[in-house]
Amino acid sequence: MSHANYYGVIMAGGRGTRFWPRSRRSHAKQVLRVLGERSLIQQTVDRLRPLLPPERLWVLTNDYLRAEIIRQLPGVPRRQILAEPAARNTAPCIGLAARILHSLDAEAVMGVFPADQVIGRPARFLRLAGAAFRAAERGRMVVLGIQPRWPETGYGYIEFPEGVRPGSLKPAPVLRFREKPDRSTAEQYIAAGRFFWNSGMFFWRADVFLKALRRHLPKAATLLESLPAFSHRHFGSRLRETFPLCENISVDYAMLEKAKDVVGLAAGDIQWNDVGSWNAVYELLPRDAEGNAGSAGRLAVASRGNYVDAEGKLVALLGVENLIVVDTPDALLVADRARAQQVADLVKLLERRKREELL
Amino acid sequence: MSHANYYGVIMAGGRGTRFWPRSRRSHAKQVLRVLGERSLIQQTVDRLRPLLPPERLWVLTNDYLRAEIIRQLPGVPRRQILAEPAARNTAPCIGLAARILHSLDAEAVMGVFPADQVIGRPARFLRLAGAAFRAAERGRMVVLGIQPRWPETGYGYIEFPEGVRPGSLKPAPVLRFREKPDRSTAEQYIAAGRFFWNSGMFFWRADVFLKALRRHLPKAATLLESLPAFSHRHFGSRLRETFPLCENISVDYAMLEKAKDVVGLAAGDIQWNDVGSWNAVYELLPRDAEGNAGSAGRLAVASRGNYVDAEGKLVALLGVENLIVVDTPDALLVADRARAQQVADLVKLLERRKREELL
Repeated sequence: MSHANYYGVIMAGGRGTRFWPRSRRSHAKQVLRVLGERSLIQQTVDRLRPLLPPERLWVLTNDYLRAEIIRQLPGVPRRQILAEPAARNTAPCIGLAARILHSLDAEAVMGVFPADQVIGRPARFLRLAGAAFRAAERGRMVVLGIQPRWPETGYGYIEFPEGVRPGSLKPAPVLRFREKPDRSTAEQYIAAGRFFWNSGMFFWRADVFLKALRRHLPKAATLLESLPAFSHRHFGSRLRETFPLCENISVDYAMLEKAKDVVGLAAGDIQWNDVGSWNAVYELLPRDAEGNAGSAGRLAVASRGNYVDAEGKLVALLGVENLIVVDTPDALLVADRARAQQVADLVKLLERRKREELL
Repeated sequence: MSHANYYGVIMAGGRGTRFWPRSRRSHAKQVLRVLGERSLIQQTVDRLRPLLPPERLWVLTNDYLRAEIIRQLPGVPRRQILAEPAARNTAPCIGLAARILHSLDAEAVMGVFPADQVIGRPARFLRLAGAAFRAAERGRMVVLGIQPRWPETGYGYIEFPEGVRPGSLKPAPVLRFREKPDRSTAEQYIAAGRFFWNSGMFFWRADVFLKALRRHLPKAATLLESLPAFSHRHFGSRLRETFPLCENISVDYAMLEKAKDVVGLAAGDIQWNDVGSWNAVYELLPRDAEGNAGSAGRLAVASRGNYVDAEGKLVALLGVENLIVVDTPDALLVADRARAQQVADLVKLLERRKREELL
């Protein structure tokens, strides 16, 4: 095997409702330019380029987003940008990618990357990803752990043995996957020093993954094996019949927590951020002397710590603090930054009120 | 003399910068629909109708606003909607109106009304205005005082003698005009019970006013007297040469404070409001259970006491309190309600930055 067998699978099916009102079904978080001039998915592709040219990338998304992603990623062959017929979480999604890649290249090694993360130190990340690919090539299932910077309760954790060295390119055994902890547990994890955030980035050979799928998720495995060859003219229609029947479950929960032989790379400081909310964007952006950030077209008087996102419009802030202000042509959000996570609840409220035009 | 000699002069030359970003040079506060379906100037005309039909109204405004006011007031003859060639405060403005009215009707009695006030009890107001016109007809200069409801420091006050009765239709002598007081003085005024807000509404015969103008502001009087007849084809061009040479001064300061024979009517509760800021609009509007008011298209979660003004757009509020949110196509204001007065300073800042397109 060689680098020519390395493929990237970009998972881009999420909605990113916490980025409402900019994030919509047909314009979700991963295709937004919330940090810089390139969208999050474009940044993901850019970052991988030294290791994986766009021709070797596959993108799994949905019908709402496919056209926009094709537009944003001209280097990725169009037929490699697939719409999942239904949202079935990560296990069937990765299973489908593994099924297709394996049918095209029996020796395919795949790296799985969420489309909506940022990494401030891409060179360090690429060294880790390269090491992960090499371990995957040798038959291991590899997960990338991120050294935690605070006791986050919104992520799963990877438990490594004592003595794990952040930044090492040598994979370490994963003792256990830990689901999202409560605050005090998260603090214990940080103190212990051997619990790492689960980044959602995975590396394995397609055949190895399909074997694990058969063991842990036999129904999905059977359904995906029943598909005709990717080039077959009925592939799309069969996928639309089959895929919705797969279990709706994450790869972490369905497989990794049960597999015995998973290894991990413990990343040091690669400035990873999953850009989970408008507040995360605020934290990542440069701020002015008053701690305001975002759109250049703002005028702040006696105002501190605000994030502004408004295109082609002056936003005047007067005596306000720690707000998120996001303006779009049909919806405007004004929120306390401390409640950035609850923006997702606003979207649920709009769904209940059948405000489809705003979703 | 009879009602046929009564005229209304509506002063509509202000900018209303505290209503930015909705208030602009060519769409100032008085032509905005900030309360209900009619603009403030339309409400002013509606309110006067039982006393003064639109044919007997004259509107003094500026070149930016004239076209919009003509559009909004189809009942007022177009030639009676005049653009002042320069902003010269109220004394030259009223002087010009007096000069024109007197030349058309030697017995003209004029009521002067700011274009941007609201009055919750118009029938009570009309009874007072009728009494004021009758006193003016007899040669008095009459000012309408409003019973103060709080120790406002932003208004001038009218000092009446002991025993003044709010709501009485009998004019009382005005002892003094008092400029905007400081807080403790305002509190003393309230406690004394005989200091009333100066509403900016005045009533006098045109000839009486012109005589007073000659005494107190001889330069403006001479300039205005030099104008040809209103119907003369050079009236407009001569006005453009002459008017800017008048003193830039208020009628209160230039004349009323010095005149000896001014009387006043002390209004009781007519629910007068000069709609001085977005906060005044908030206070005047109905509020929901959480104290939010304004545009129907709002979605408030854990948010209290906010005012929202946004046309054709959903405004989602999340965890915010006591904000003013005013959205327009090219500018958005997010301000603490307690700082509503300072919106005018924002506009000055935009002027200094030469953001003409936003003024």
